[in-house]
Amino acid sequence: MAQITDKPFIYNLYDNPVSGPEIEARSFAVIDAEAENYQQTEQEWEVVRRLIHTTADFTLAELTCFSDDAFSSGTAALKAGAKIYADSNMIRAGISLARLQKVNPAYSREDVFCHVADVDVAEKARQAGLPRSLFAVQKAREILSGSIVLIGNAPVALLEINRLAMEEDIRPALVIGMPVGFVHVLESKEELLCTGLPHVIINGRRGGSPLAVACLHAICDVTYNKK
Amino acid sequence: MAQITDKPFIYNLYDNPVSGPEIEARSFAVIDAEAENYQQTEQEWEVVRRLIHTTADFTLAELTCFSDDAFSSGTAALKAGAKIYADSNMIRAGISLARLQKVNPAYSREDVFCHVADVDVAEKARQAGLPRSLFAVQKAREILSGSIVLIGNAPVALLEINRLAMEEDIRPALVIGMPVGFVHVLESKEELLCTGLPHVIINGRRGGSPLAVACLHAICDVTYNKK
Repeated sequence: MAQITDKPFIYNLYDNPVSGPEIEARSFAVIDAEAENYQQTEQEWEVVRRLIHTTADFTLAELTCFSDDAFSSGTAALKAGAKIYADSNMIRAGISLARLQKVNPAYSREDVFCHVADVDVAEKARQAGLPRSLFAVQKAREILSGSIVLIGNAPVALLEINRLAMEEDIRPALVIGMPVGFVHVLESKEELLCTGLPHVIINGRRGGSPLAVACLHAICDVTYNKK
Repeated sequence: MAQITDKPFIYNLYDNPVSGPEIEARSFAVIDAEAENYQQTEQEWEVVRRLIHTTADFTLAELTCFSDDAFSSGTAALKAGAKIYADSNMIRAGISLARLQKVNPAYSREDVFCHVADVDVAEKARQAGLPRSLFAVQKAREILSGSIVLIGNAPVALLEINRLAMEEDIRPALVIGMPVGFVHVLESKEELLCTGLPHVIINGRRGGSPLAVACLHAICDVTYNKK
């Protein structure tokens, strides 16, 4: 470590400049090399590789599952400028508008909905003694048909998405079902499979907002590159 | 799965209502039960448990390391209303203002800085052919001494934090060093250890914005509960 304390490591970057996109490409090359026996299709690998890139966790390769219509339905929706529903504001903050606009230039920030921090939603949750994520989904009811839904946090949000599909025939074009945790998470993912909705899920307890965002970004890339 | 397709699972919640905080408490109980042999101090376990809660990944227990002064320096800074620097807008979106205000009521959204998406930062990065995260840290230079720094994404941001400490004696009160990925990540964490800055890190390639946020929230809880 002597050279590190002598001279900060960052000077190596000034000596050999690499941009953000170049670092991403180099990272993808490392992932490809270390995960060479992956079983996914090319499209699926685009997603899985980005999930690994986001977490440095290769176990996600085995946990990620796609419905047969995930890409066809998801890419068609993105091209059509489908509304996007997110269960957390971290997802809304993480979604790259530039990447959405590469697929459809009409996309704006106003196409990405998240109601979990709304005052009226918090009030309903407090009155009912139930999670805010439930009422946040209900508030978005009118925009959910044909939308792209990203769940990276709250299994209850996914349960309500499932109920709307089962009982009210409100069917998103794609559900990125990646809630995380220890209560209701497994049930929410199992039930999603029963709904027949186009989906990408991470099996088991794992998930997270950056994973949901990474999945959407990868599907944007797939859509754009196929044009 | 028959009962699931008959009746959406979410009705179980209406029958036995549980709020968000109750679900969190139940999740923590599951984590405590499954990780009963943890080696951390009580304070450290508060952090590690929340990292596990955020990801459902128990391997983080072994990867998380604390400097001896992490809690003393971090809690003092929070009580004093120290500025907060985040390397991603996902972190900024994820930080709970209510939780900060429980520690110090004077906290506002304006105390949380993130410059990675600023137009002037993007322009500098493009001209230099270097990552935006570098120039985002440089833009925050004046507020970094005594601040709490959260790095959940970009190792280059952490490298610049390190350089500022080593060369310019700009010393944050706490560095939550959790960049993730495959390029410069290991070096950035190793160098942080050499700076002597108070820190919490996740060893190896792992990290992420929700982990950095969870760490800050846990330290808020520790600070508040000790009052």
